[in-house]
Amino acid sequence: MSGFKKSIAIFGPGLMGGSLLLALRQRSPQLSLRVWGRRESALESLQEANLANFCSTDAAAVAKGAEAIVLCVPVDKLAEVARLAVPGVSPDCLVTDVGSVKSTVVAELGEIFSSQGNFVGSHPMCGSETTGWEAARADLYEGAWCVITPTPETRPNMVEAAKNLWTSLGAQVREMSPSEHDRAAALISHVPHVAAAALVEILAGENPSWQSLCAGGFRDTTRVASGSPELWTAILSHNRVETARALGVLVRLLQSIQKSLEIDKMDQIAQFLEAAQSRRNHIMEDI
Amino acid sequence: MSGFKKSIAIFGPGLMGGSLLLALRQRSPQLSLRVWGRRESALESLQEANLANFCSTDAAAVAKGAEAIVLCVPVDKLAEVARLAVPGVSPDCLVTDVGSVKSTVVAELGEIFSSQGNFVGSHPMCGSETTGWEAARADLYEGAWCVITPTPETRPNMVEAAKNLWTSLGAQVREMSPSEHDRAAALISHVPHVAAAALVEILAGENPSWQSLCAGGFRDTTRVASGSPELWTAILSHNRVETARALGVLVRLLQSIQKSLEIDKMDQIAQFLEAAQSRRNHIMEDI
Repeated sequence: MSGFKKSIAIFGPGLMGGSLLLALRQRSPQLSLRVWGRRESALESLQEANLANFCSTDAAAVAKGAEAIVLCVPVDKLAEVARLAVPGVSPDCLVTDVGSVKSTVVAELGEIFSSQGNFVGSHPMCGSETTGWEAARADLYEGAWCVITPTPETRPNMVEAAKNLWTSLGAQVREMSPSEHDRAAALISHVPHVAAAALVEILAGENPSWQSLCAGGFRDTTRVASGSPELWTAILSHNRVETARALGVLVRLLQSIQKSLEIDKMDQIAQFLEAAQSRRNHIMEDI
Repeated sequence: MSGFKKSIAIFGPGLMGGSLLLALRQRSPQLSLRVWGRRESALESLQEANLANFCSTDAAAVAKGAEAIVLCVPVDKLAEVARLAVPGVSPDCLVTDVGSVKSTVVAELGEIFSSQGNFVGSHPMCGSETTGWEAARADLYEGAWCVITPTPETRPNMVEAAKNLWTSLGAQVREMSPSEHDRAAALISHVPHVAAAALVEILAGENPSWQSLCAGGFRDTTRVASGSPELWTAILSHNRVETARALGVLVRLLQSIQKSLEIDKMDQIAQFLEAAQSRRNHIMEDI
């Protein structure tokens, strides 16, 4: 149980917001679920599914009376949508988000909600290269890690409320500072995304006719590169400093591997591959 | 039908050789299938499965009478195993392999079989991070591309025999020179492998406690890094020049992305991600 008894509002019925709607409807049938979408057209298929109690393009109306608001729009739209909601947000309403970047988001939204201290940044780490309501699943958050990033300005009961929300959906919660989250996310997600896209590009740049030889290994290594360019440009823009720094670390390691290959130091290559295999197998035990 | 009527010998009952055995047994029940393994212990589970007509650690004995020999041992063992087989190989027997690198392999094995011109290099592009007979599947080659790399010294009827073998298993065959294959394989497989291992290593190097936050994106992007370090050290060693060159291309692209992020040129990032998404989606239509 989420600890919420009456009403939760979801802003943005895409993959993350839609999955939240499905999960809350399944786990808390008594809750009134309110959904905001930017366009009527985005709300139509949702209304057909008959899962939400109230759907509207009026942000303040959707926010009204909610005990929790979860902003599930792209990171570059969060502040704008939050401002639209503000007139309807009650002082005791938890406001959180699902954005992949936290420092810029927490600074912007923390300021918007500074008088009440009711904003807590969240990042449930369970995305996908798919997007939209069609890709939503009730179990998206089950077993996932959700990082929350409270600040000294956040009211303690709001931190508890955010924890309860995510754990009630089957996620595990970990607290981090916004900047630590962004350093971690650069290495776990943002740099792997850039690397995947780069692997696609160097193959295409060399000889497109070789592309048809690609099989399962290439498919999996580059899967995330099929993610929405708009969403990912916004993510990389919001975390550009940490992503650039981590790319620098990756580049230096790749250059040292390149050097080892050039001078035929295969013992160094063997050590590198052994360490990576052992570490990855260890990581996979937890996924 | 493979065009082979009597007997095929498989050297090395691992993932590739074991899958070949399963596929040939299913598709050509009349064939006598002969299997060589380095150790008796490696042949035991195979003999229990009762799929091969003759299993032995004596390479020349296994080769004897075969119309085709497929060498399915790691690339750094191919020449050694081929030499063991030579006394049993008849002049009209096709000899091929499944190695992931072709220039060095074709040079070594082409020389061993130069008097008959009966060696044709093959690379069925359908591996996996798993290894061993336990991971073998009858459908591994179905729908896969298999590159074959004949040279001017290869007898034309041997090229036809190699094509027939792979197409009879459901694979599509493409001819390339050994050096073109190795340039393509560096980009499709060898550099993605290094990149996957490097992504694991930079995460571990920064803060191991962040590893538990990894989810599906990281899992897929780095899947190949769980491949056998021994097999992959041998592959990278045999294709070290092309892999180093392609790593250089990757590094230069990553550096330009890093630069765009540092100077906040997000239009360049957007173009890069759009091109990669569109190209990857195109590649995936064929897989």
